[in-house]
Amino acid sequence: MSTTDIWTHHQPIRISNGPLQETLLASLKLILPTEQIKPQDSIVLITTAGFTKRGITAQLAEWLSPLKLLVIDEVTANPDIDTIDSWINHYSKQPIAAVIGLGGGSAMDAAKAMAVMQSLAKTERSPLNKLFREKSIKQPNSRLPLLLIPTTAGTGSEVTPFATIWDNRHKQKHSLTSDSVYPDIALLDASLTLSLPIDETLYSGLDALSHSLESLWNKHSTPISEAYAKQAIALLATHFTTVLITPSNFAARQGMQMASLLAGLAISTTKTAIAHAISYPLTSHYALPHGLACSFTLPALLEMVQSSTELSHLSSTLRQAQSLLQQLPLNEALQAKINFSQIYSHTNEMFHPDRAGNFIMPFATSDLLKLLQHSEVLLKTALVSAELSALLPQ
Amino acid sequence: MSTTDIWTHHQPIRISNGPLQETLLASLKLILPTEQIKPQDSIVLITTAGFTKRGITAQLAEWLSPLKLLVIDEVTANPDIDTIDSWINHYSKQPIAAVIGLGGGSAMDAAKAMAVMQSLAKTERSPLNKLFREKSIKQPNSRLPLLLIPTTAGTGSEVTPFATIWDNRHKQKHSLTSDSVYPDIALLDASLTLSLPIDETLYSGLDALSHSLESLWNKHSTPISEAYAKQAIALLATHFTTVLITPSNFAARQGMQMASLLAGLAISTTKTAIAHAISYPLTSHYALPHGLACSFTLPALLEMVQSSTELSHLSSTLRQAQSLLQQLPLNEALQAKINFSQIYSHTNEMFHPDRAGNFIMPFATSDLLKLLQHSEVLLKTALVSAELSALLPQ
Repeated sequence: MSTTDIWTHHQPIRISNGPLQETLLASLKLILPTEQIKPQDSIVLITTAGFTKRGITAQLAEWLSPLKLLVIDEVTANPDIDTIDSWINHYSKQPIAAVIGLGGGSAMDAAKAMAVMQSLAKTERSPLNKLFREKSIKQPNSRLPLLLIPTTAGTGSEVTPFATIWDNRHKQKHSLTSDSVYPDIALLDASLTLSLPIDETLYSGLDALSHSLESLWNKHSTPISEAYAKQAIALLATHFTTVLITPSNFAARQGMQMASLLAGLAISTTKTAIAHAISYPLTSHYALPHGLACSFTLPALLEMVQSSTELSHLSSTLRQAQSLLQQLPLNEALQAKINFSQIYSHTNEMFHPDRAGNFIMPFATSDLLKLLQHSEVLLKTALVSAELSALLPQ
Repeated sequence: MSTTDIWTHHQPIRISNGPLQETLLASLKLILPTEQIKPQDSIVLITTAGFTKRGITAQLAEWLSPLKLLVIDEVTANPDIDTIDSWINHYSKQPIAAVIGLGGGSAMDAAKAMAVMQSLAKTERSPLNKLFREKSIKQPNSRLPLLLIPTTAGTGSEVTPFATIWDNRHKQKHSLTSDSVYPDIALLDASLTLSLPIDETLYSGLDALSHSLESLWNKHSTPISEAYAKQAIALLATHFTTVLITPSNFAARQGMQMASLLAGLAISTTKTAIAHAISYPLTSHYALPHGLACSFTLPALLEMVQSSTELSHLSSTLRQAQSLLQQLPLNEALQAKINFSQIYSHTNEMFHPDRAGNFIMPFATSDLLKLLQHSEVLLKTALVSAELSALLPQ
């Protein structure tokens, strides 16, 4: 920090950890005082079909009774403008008291978009289309009460002021970003993450790791965001390989969920940097899972920042991250989805001046190819244990 | 954490770091929208005479103009019920738009008390007396808009939901505690701490260190409060001896202020523990500075928690704190104010079940004397450098 360093920190979210049954109603009462609820009010739940199949949706409906739960359980990866607009249009006449998002980043980001844009539904059809494609309306400054429940451990969306919304038609990524995108409440119950398949456990854990690192090597880093990111990396170093080898280990699941939360808090202040800029075209063109797309360059970036004097006080944390990355089957996971020639064919879409500008070292478009090539070498020469490299579903 | 761990985190404060001139008005606008200010509105500034003498009060009045600044610059150490009540009574007819507290813990806690209790001033004379001595009224759930500006680096009061108010008449300590005691805004400008005398720099730094440790060895510790406390200790390890030897070192002043902020965030969630319980009678009877009173037992407590398996993941942080404590002239500072026979004569007042209950290890009244005796031995045998032990004013 220099004498002229100016920064702001504001994270008004209420975070509760514990069994959902014990935290859900108590939390909801804080944002929906009983006296304000009208008999016709409904709560919208945005989730995936899997949670309905596993009985969680019905369980939530029971706990929330007599409030009516309107269930949208059609979320799939990378929520799209047109899909969310169709839900907003569908419920435009309904008095909605609150939105609950239950799932990974896709379900939570869709819930954020719905909570923010629903206020416009009475007057505007398809408000996300008007906001992002037509640019004919502005993002509202307020939203419906919003409660988020993460079921993966990586996105951190439960505590960020961002929602990523994809335009599948034009292969583009858009963001809702503002203090009003912060949810009111984030509820953490690690038992919900126990059913997460091994590949998604890897991808989402990598997402948390990439958030932590991108927040540390960030021009907007503060002593507070740094505290979060360091703690996230310490937790990942302790729990990541354990959770991959023993997915039923509750303490490891909880450690991963906390790491994801802390990494989310870290990027809420700093946003992300160059590794994320590189990821977006790969997710857009090849549906490469986000956590994988934004982490395959991390080993090479870690080498790059070793020379940064601004990060010298973080050397032990950066070493911790490096040693963790060397143990993870990153190359195996990547090769199962995409090859490097496909990656190289999109370098011209990977440079995003804002994200590159967040990176603490100078980074020009000309550095991109070198970084990708070095990433390829590092990934292919990493010595991953047989146990961990055999983990992914064939 | 166990599977049944339930905890909540909520810190809605807006924190801004930077030169006051650049952050003050922008922050104030967020809690006092221009359209809501009436021409007769005043802002109350609570501070010490020193800041008026050094021209800071006049500077604030100029920046805030045309809003009228009502200056209370009579704060002294450990604000008393009757003093604050007299201010509240004095301004009971005045339309006050916001309260600003500028100073150390005493000024900020007085400002918190005034912001919380002023709403009762229209109907109740001396509301703090009624709340704490007569117990005839309850603490209000709302308060006036509140902005705090710390000028020491230790209390962390700028981000805590507590205000300590002393009853000098009955030698007792009271607390205002609730989410509504959180300020709206905390503004950090380390240049304001440059004028802090060496003894107060030591005491307040010790306060930050004691907050960090008391939050780590606390039953209410969460992964988030732990992140804050670890980062606070890392900053103290880097900057504390530097700031004592070179008080004009701005980076060290800034590091100490950040450590204090982070330690304040940590205890906001956990509250403090046994070292603080021990401190209160010593401050009450001998006006022993708070940071000194709650830190002279830290070396002995650090030895005690070495056997705690719940803290084993924190061993490097605890070693960092221990090594720092061994370098600081704790014994010299304590002996200048009080001797151990005086300390021992108050053991019967030192046990506070709540605080002892926060401590992560079993701690009974019978452990107190042993702890104090071991503290005496450790302090007297610490090998402090000649440079640091000669620091205190004789």
